Amino acid sequence: MTFASAGTLGVVPSKRDELVAHLTQRSDILSQIGCLAYEVGVSDGDLETVFVMELWESAEAHQASLALPEVQASIAAARPLLSGAFGGFRFNVVGSPLRD
Amino acid sequence: MTFASAGTLGVVPSKRDELVAHLTQRSDILSQIGCLAYEVGVSDGDLETVFVMELWESAEAHQASLALPEVQASIAAARPLLSGAFGGFRFNVVGSPLRD
Repeated sequence: MTFASAGTLGVVPSKRDELVAHLTQRSDILSQIGCLAYEVGVSDGDLETVFVMELWESAEAHQASLALPEVQASIAAARPLLSGAFGGFRFNVVGSPLRD
Repeated sequence: MTFASAGTLGVVPSKRDELVAHLTQRSDILSQIGCLAYEVGVSDGDLETVFVMELWESAEAHQASLALPEVQASIAAARPLLSGAFGGFRFNVVGSPLRD
């Protein structure tokens, strides 16, 4: 069952663009391990937040990704840019009006 | 610029499945008006919420969709199922590690 995660990452002041650059760095491994979509963005009204929308083949694929050395290294590299504020939600995809 | 919306819809008790069925009803018009993704889901831990993750070609395409008679009719039909609790966030997509 497709797993979805929509998250907000609080960023250290003036580090938003740096975090966006980090999160959008091309990664071939993500699709190999079941990541179907990983959209990163910003909002003009909130300079201290980076937004991420993810779809994974399953909750298990997402969970397993967190243990990968490449992913752990990426998280460690992002840590100095994060304020510690996190938000968002996760859910299991049931369907879409765009497909049968 | 791709526009993203991640939302939570509070549902009237016992109406969750009905709202999911409503939101996932096949709609050809959505993709015609710039909807790139519309994922609907639930979470085992929260029986009173339906989750929606949307991607649109632009914020303007999303905004324009709300004025369409078909979309307005759909919103009106969903209203009796909604508790009035809404959450989530919107952002402009800057990029993805899955593509250059």
